[in-house]
Amino acid sequence: MSVADELRIFGIPGIPEIVPGTDLAAVIFEAARRADRPLCSGDILVVTSKVVSKAEGRIVDLDTVEPSPFARQYAEAWDKDPRVVELVLREAKRVVRQVGPVLITETRHGFVCANSGVDQSSAGAAGRAVLLPLDPDASARRIREGLRERGLDVAVIISDTFGRPWREAQTDVAIGIAGMQPVVSYIGQKDPHGHEFRVQALCVADELAGAAELVKGNISRVPAAVIRGFPWTPDETATMRSIVRDPERDLFR
Amino acid sequence: MSVADELRIFGIPGIPEIVPGTDLAAVIFEAARRADRPLCSGDILVVTSKVVSKAEGRIVDLDTVEPSPFARQYAEAWDKDPRVVELVLREAKRVVRQVGPVLITETRHGFVCANSGVDQSSAGAAGRAVLLPLDPDASARRIREGLRERGLDVAVIISDTFGRPWREAQTDVAIGIAGMQPVVSYIGQKDPHGHEFRVQALCVADELAGAAELVKGNISRVPAAVIRGFPWTPDETATMRSIVRDPERDLFR
Repeated sequence: MSVADELRIFGIPGIPEIVPGTDLAAVIFEAARRADRPLCSGDILVVTSKVVSKAEGRIVDLDTVEPSPFARQYAEAWDKDPRVVELVLREAKRVVRQVGPVLITETRHGFVCANSGVDQSSAGAAGRAVLLPLDPDASARRIREGLRERGLDVAVIISDTFGRPWREAQTDVAIGIAGMQPVVSYIGQKDPHGHEFRVQALCVADELAGAAELVKGNISRVPAAVIRGFPWTPDETATMRSIVRDPERDLFR
Repeated sequence: MSVADELRIFGIPGIPEIVPGTDLAAVIFEAARRADRPLCSGDILVVTSKVVSKAEGRIVDLDTVEPSPFARQYAEAWDKDPRVVELVLREAKRVVRQVGPVLITETRHGFVCANSGVDQSSAGAAGRAVLLPLDPDASARRIREGLRERGLDVAVIISDTFGRPWREAQTDVAIGIAGMQPVVSYIGQKDPHGHEFRVQALCVADELAGAAELVKGNISRVPAAVIRGFPWTPDETATMRSIVRDPERDLFR
């Protein structure tokens, strides 16, 4: 894997409203063709997790959620919806920080983010919430497979918008991947003076997800983007779980 | 500021070795022209901090560094160069974590990263280390000004490669900016159902820096890249310091 000479990045407009059961590969393939921006083998397709969640039925009617006493107390103290707090806790493997109204959790996948990625604003109707996909790598593989059935060899990244410590504002990162490894490693390579490079591994999946955000926008209803020109080597074993840091190696738990 | 329709991202090859005093705007402008990829008004130019440091003489001959007793002890315990440890501590406002050989610090600018960004591998000769620019926003402004003198209105980002908690591998982020604000805010905007968006502010500067890394590569000696097509509004007050999170609001200090 080397460096791209030139990248082109563009959104796929005209993707219809996604409902449970929507075949994402099919609708994205068709929308790209209709927009006169057909997908090509070698492309990387970045899909916002929200539409993946919707296609997979990861939408919860809040009226069906019975909050625990802990969720009720916390929601009352900070003027939150106790049913949403309950969902955040159910989606969490662990609470990493709980300070005032801010709840930073570790998701079932091992990602650390605010509110387990539970999102009320994108639910498409009041009284509903969207949860992260159960297995975003599997979601990415299904889209990759659907595109392969249409004759295309396309790597797929599922992205979400996360905050981070120390730096204000959020960025898009990868939470699922299929077809390419998320990290490019320079380990063992040395500069002309014999020093190992200070940078040993780059998470290009996160950089690709962030780059795609620049054309998708977070509120512009363009849930998929194409990155053309980035060299990648097909690898069906890829998973974003490989970048989840081992708790033993993590200084900020 | 809205979303790009299509981005083009390409590296600028042929930039010569940078030495103290090099006029970066001049050499980048010329290299882009020679490569038949001339800069245009409206472009965003992303420059690797390493070459900025070199141009600004932020290179230290390690033989001139007298390590403190603390630096000596720590270096001996973990098989490090005590002079480099000394530089890391001098460049730090505060040690955030010191666990085994890993030293996470807050730089003079307020950024949190490993080893205060001190880099031995890029120093261009054994026995030297490169420090981060003293004021990367000012560095970016100087390059922007130099391009303006050549008739171009180009936003400039200075990038470096940082790790992050919870996720393995590194990504490029912005440490200096000129001409455009680093954050796009959605605060106060609501979805059709009246919910405020879960995502309230995106640090596009970090996403742009990461996108540029995809064509620069970290070891490929292409220290500058152009992002064409991203809409930005000229603003001479921009600074990356605005994304440094207030310690009061930071849960992971």
